Amino acid sequence: MVGGEVAVVSRRGAERLRGGHPWVFRSDVERVPELPAGVVRVEAANGAPLGWALWSPRSEISLRRMEANPERVIDEGWWYDTLRTAIARRAPLAAEANAYRLVHGEGDGLPSLVVDKYGDALVVQLLSAGVDVWTETIVRALRELTGCTGILARNDPAARDREGLPREVKLLFGDVPRTVEVLEHGVRYIAAPWDGQKTGAFLDQRENRVLIGGLARGKALDCFAYHGSFALHLAKRADHVCALDVSAPALARVHEHAERNGLTNIEPVEGDAFDVLRAWHKEGRTFDTIVVDPPAFAKTRGALDGALRGYKDINLQAMKLLAPGGLLFTASCSFHLSRGLFFEMLSEAVADSGRRFALRAFTGQPLDHPELINVPETGYLKGALLEAMG
Amino acid sequence: MVGGEVAVVSRRGAERLRGGHPWVFRSDVERVPELPAGVVRVEAANGAPLGWALWSPRSEISLRRMEANPERVIDEGWWYDTLRTAIARRAPLAAEANAYRLVHGEGDGLPSLVVDKYGDALVVQLLSAGVDVWTETIVRALRELTGCTGILARNDPAARDREGLPREVKLLFGDVPRTVEVLEHGVRYIAAPWDGQKTGAFLDQRENRVLIGGLARGKALDCFAYHGSFALHLAKRADHVCALDVSAPALARVHEHAERNGLTNIEPVEGDAFDVLRAWHKEGRTFDTIVVDPPAFAKTRGALDGALRGYKDINLQAMKLLAPGGLLFTASCSFHLSRGLFFEMLSEAVADSGRRFALRAFTGQPLDHPELINVPETGYLKGALLEAMG
Repeated sequence: MVGGEVAVVSRRGAERLRGGHPWVFRSDVERVPELPAGVVRVEAANGAPLGWALWSPRSEISLRRMEANPERVIDEGWWYDTLRTAIARRAPLAAEANAYRLVHGEGDGLPSLVVDKYGDALVVQLLSAGVDVWTETIVRALRELTGCTGILARNDPAARDREGLPREVKLLFGDVPRTVEVLEHGVRYIAAPWDGQKTGAFLDQRENRVLIGGLARGKALDCFAYHGSFALHLAKRADHVCALDVSAPALARVHEHAERNGLTNIEPVEGDAFDVLRAWHKEGRTFDTIVVDPPAFAKTRGALDGALRGYKDINLQAMKLLAPGGLLFTASCSFHLSRGLFFEMLSEAVADSGRRFALRAFTGQPLDHPELINVPETGYLKGALLEAMG
Repeated sequence: MVGGEVAVVSRRGAERLRGGHPWVFRSDVERVPELPAGVVRVEAANGAPLGWALWSPRSEISLRRMEANPERVIDEGWWYDTLRTAIARRAPLAAEANAYRLVHGEGDGLPSLVVDKYGDALVVQLLSAGVDVWTETIVRALRELTGCTGILARNDPAARDREGLPREVKLLFGDVPRTVEVLEHGVRYIAAPWDGQKTGAFLDQRENRVLIGGLARGKALDCFAYHGSFALHLAKRADHVCALDVSAPALARVHEHAERNGLTNIEPVEGDAFDVLRAWHKEGRTFDTIVVDPPAFAKTRGALDGALRGYKDINLQAMKLLAPGGLLFTASCSFHLSRGLFFEMLSEAVADSGRRFALRAFTGQPLDHPELINVPETGYLKGALLEAMG
C-alpha cells in the first residue's frame, strides 16, 4: 500500500497543501495514482515532494494529506504514533468525564477518522475510502493504546456515499453495549452508541454545559433540550428548569435523566420552541437563565439564508424572555454559519430586542474537538454567553 | 440641570439611538441645547421623545444617551441606582481579587465614566463634559455605595482634550496611596493609581492571566512583560519563566514582584521582543508556554496596516518558538483591530509558520469590562489560546 504510487497535484493544489490545508480536490490532481484507495505519495508538477496523503478515487476530495514529511513512511508505526499523540492530548479530560472524542479527523492530523470514547467502549467513523483501507490497523492500535473492551463502527454518515463506501453500523471488536452511562462533571446521562445522534451523544457541548451550569440561577429554560444534557447541568444551580422540545420521546428521556440524577426541578415541556417562546413572552413570563442550542439549521450552504432567519428569530425570542441581569447561552453547530455571521446574527437580534446585552464569553470547540486555524472544515461549533444589562 | 433643555436629533441620529447605540455625533444634532454641558432631554425631529443624554458642546460626540425612558428623571437617585447595579454585577469577583473595574462607561449604561477599585481606594475617569458636571454626585454615591477610603480622579486621558476639559490628576476624596497591593487569584502585584498605566494596572487581563496561568508548564515566556503580571501567573506552574521587556525599569518591577510572591523561577530579560524572538529561533530555543500581550500597536485607524504587520510578525515569531504541544496565549488591546481582523492576522501567521495550530479558546473582556453587542466602542480586548499540534 505504501509503494511507488504517486499523485501529482497542480500548482493550486500544492499551494493549498503548503498553506496548511490537508485537502486537494479532484480538479487539482494532475495525475491520479493507480492504487484503488489508500495512502499515496504526493508530488508537485515539478516533482517536488509534498508528503503522503489518503487517496479517494471517487470523492470530490481526492487527497487528504496526513504527513508533510516525505521521508516518513506511513506504516503501522505511523498510525500508532499519531493515535498515541491524539489520545495523550485528551488526558486532562479523564478527571471529569468518561466520554470524549479521542480523534477529531483533520484536527488531529488523522483526516476523515473520528474516534469517540464512551466509558470502556469506542465508536469510530471511517469517512473516506483512503482511511477505510486502514481499518484493521486502526482497530489494532486503538485496542492496544486504550485497552477498550469494544469498538463499534458508526459508518452511517452520508459522507460515506460520496466516497463510494457502504453506509453501515458494525462491531469491529469485542462488545459495545446499546447504552452507556456518561459521567460528566457530576452529571450522568445515557449515550446510545449504536443508534443515537452522531456517535451516541453530543460530546462537543460538554464544556459549554459546564460553563452555563456553573452560572445558572433562578428560573431556567433549555430550548431544543433533546435528552436534556444542558437541562441537567442547569438544574444543579437553578431553582427550576423548563426543558423544551418538540419530541415527546426526547422528553421521556429528559424525565429518566432527571430521575437518574436525583433532580426534581426539571419540567419537560413539549412544543415548538419558536411558538412556545412567543406565547410565553405574550404572557409576560421571564427566565433568569436560557440555553438556545438548536440543531444545525444550515446543513448546506444553500440553506444559509433561511437558517440565519431561524437563528435570529429564536435568539430574539429568547432575549425578550430574559429577566434583567439574566444570562443567555446560545450556540450554533452549523458549519456554514461562520463565526463572523454568527456574531452578525446575534447583533441584529439584539438591535431588534431593544435591550442592551453584554458579551460575557464566546466559545469554540473543546480540547477534544480541535479546530485548526487555517482548516475551516475542522470547526463548526460556536457559542456566546450574553447578559441582559437591564 | 435637568430642566427643559432639549437636543433635537436627525433621523439618522434617532435611528442610531433606537438601534441601541448611545452616541449621537455633532452632525446629527439638529438643534443644540442651550445648557453649557450636562444632562439634556433628547427628541426626534418629529418631537418623539428619545430619553436623556449627556451633552458635550465641544465634542464630536455631542450626545451620549444614559436613559431611554423619557419618564425617568436623571437625578441623584438615578445615579445611585445605576451605580449600585453596576457595582452589584462585580460581586462574584470579590472572592478572588481586590482590584477590578466597577464601572465600564457605556458598557454599564454610564457613558464616559470609568471607576476602578484598588483595595479600599477608587480611581475614576470623567471623560466627557456632560459627566464631568456630575462629579460631586458621583463621588457622594461611590462613597456611600462602596465605603471606599479615597477617590482619585485620573482625568489625564487625551479624550478630555476633545471635550474641552483640562487634563489633571486630583484627589476627590479621602486618601489614595501611591501604590496598592493587588491580590489576584493567589498572585500579588503593585498597582500605581496616581501614575501607572491606565488607572494603575491592566485589570482587563485578569481572567486571561488566570487562564494561561492554569495551563502553563515547562519553559515559559512572557513577551512585553511590563511589570510581569502574566509572568507571575505563569511562574506558579511553569518550571521557568523568561519575562521579556524592552524597559529596564519595568524589569526591575518584575524582579520586585517575583520576590513579593516568593517566586525564584522568573528571569527578567531586557530586549526588543521582535529581535530577541528571532535570535532565539536561530539558536534553536523552544518554549512550552508563551504569552504575547503587546501594547496597542494600532492607536488610530490610520495605524492599522502597520499594526497588523507588527501583530502578525510577533505572533509568527512566537509560533516558531513553540515546542510541539506548546501553548500560545496571544492578545490585542487595539480597538481598531476588530475580532475578525485579529483572527485573519493569526491565520496568516499560522500559514507562514508552516505548522498546525488548534484554537483552544478565544476570549473577550471580563465581567467587569462589559462589551455591549451593538456598541463596538465598549470592546477592544480580544485573545486567543493556540496549541501547537506538532
